[in-house]
Amino acid sequence: MAGVELLPKEYGYVAIVLVLYCFLNFWMAAQVGSARKRYKVFYPTMYATEAENKDAKLFNCVQRGHQNSLEMMPMFFMLMILGGIRHPLICASLGVVYSVARFFYFKGYSTGDPTKRFTIGKYSFLAMLGLMICTISFGVNMLIA
Amino acid sequence: MAGVELLPKEYGYVAIVLVLYCFLNFWMAAQVGSARKRYKVFYPTMYATEAENKDAKLFNCVQRGHQNSLEMMPMFFMLMILGGIRHPLICASLGVVYSVARFFYFKGYSTGDPTKRFTIGKYSFLAMLGLMICTISFGVNMLIA
Amino acid sequence: MAGVELLPKEYGYVAIVLVLYCFLNFWMAAQVGSARKRYKVFYPTMYATEAENKDAKLFNCVQRGHQNSLEMMPMFFMLMILGGIRHPLICASLGVVYSVARFFYFKGYSTGDPTKRFTIGKYSFLAMLGLMICTISFGVNMLIA
Repeated sequence: MAGVELLPKEYGYVAIVLVLYCFLNFWMAAQVGSARKRYKVFYPTMYATEAENKDAKLFNCVQRGHQNSLEMMPMFFMLMILGGIRHPLICASLGVVYSVARFFYFKGYSTGDPTKRFTIGKYSFLAMLGLMICTISFGVNMLIA
Repeated sequence: MAGVELLPKEYGYVAIVLVLYCFLNFWMAAQVGSARKRYKVFYPTMYATEAENKDAKLFNCVQRGHQNSLEMMPMFFMLMILGGIRHPLICASLGVVYSVARFFYFKGYSTGDPTKRFTIGKYSFLAMLGLMICTISFGVNMLIA
Repeated sequence: MAGVELLPKEYGYVAIVLVLYCFLNFWMAAQVGSARKRYKVFYPTMYATEAENKDAKLFNCVQRGHQNSLEMMPMFFMLMILGGIRHPLICASLGVVYSVARFFYFKGYSTGDPTKRFTIGKYSFLAMLGLMICTISFGVNMLIA
């Protein structure tokens, strides 16, 4: 165990951005809850069916806008936690870009037109790529330093 | 990189609570597997439909009890990992509260009445809020210390 | 805060394996995207229904192959992040076993026969068990050292 890695003080920004993302996630979940009331999709139904609900597609768009974010969330968190050890300011900034892009992904999907999720939402993938590069950088530098 | 953060020895409790939560998660997945046999919902079907299965709602309640926990799991893990660096005993305790509340969330939902998931399950949100405060505290103290 | 834990230099392998897993995840997502085109399952539909799509089961098998991996991903990440602090080489190796087993889980499920997901895919659970042991070891050693 020859190596050493200490958390830089700027890592605080990484932690704060991650908690802010949690608030965004709760907001999206609340929007889905509102959509359930508006389009009459009751628990435990996750995705409405057109046979039973004329607003099925619209509700499912809102639901998927949130669910897709949930699917990406573990990767986002892990890359921020690790990449942020070596590049805290870059990762915190990418985390803000990611969060904003995810917000617009959700808003775009919620219009009922799935293609609109990418108008601004596509930048979330650029941010994720940046975080992956930061984490690879962290990993490689641990080995060669 | 002027700052320093070292893991306190009590962080061991955080790690242990997190592994215990994994056991709870596997238990819930096993309950869903049993429900598949009992209500005849075969892979790859995720949610049963009333048109094809008279026990659809009951099965979907069990499935959602587990799936909702999976949706919250990344946030729970991330907040424990980070918040636990500064507040290991508080976070480990909140993690136990969260795990117990999640158990009852699942049991309540599994009765087939979605509202019963909140009887005790609602305390999981209080625990989550506590973990978010711990993580913000960790982040802020990294910056100002 | 009497304890101390410093990241060993081999932790770099843990970070690199985790990023490699992200690539596997993106590959699986791309396979699902291709399956959407092939079997004509359009957004926001998550799971196809036999009533509307003769290839429903085949598409749903591909979708579940990816989704099940997403459900396990947070546990895999958390156990690698924590267990890897004390056992970086073991965890990095288990992470590779896990990733390979997950690849075959997806390929097996994608044949359209759900049982084939376990032919090699079952080893992902052995790897996960190994990671849980590593994380318990990390936690216990933090407390007793």
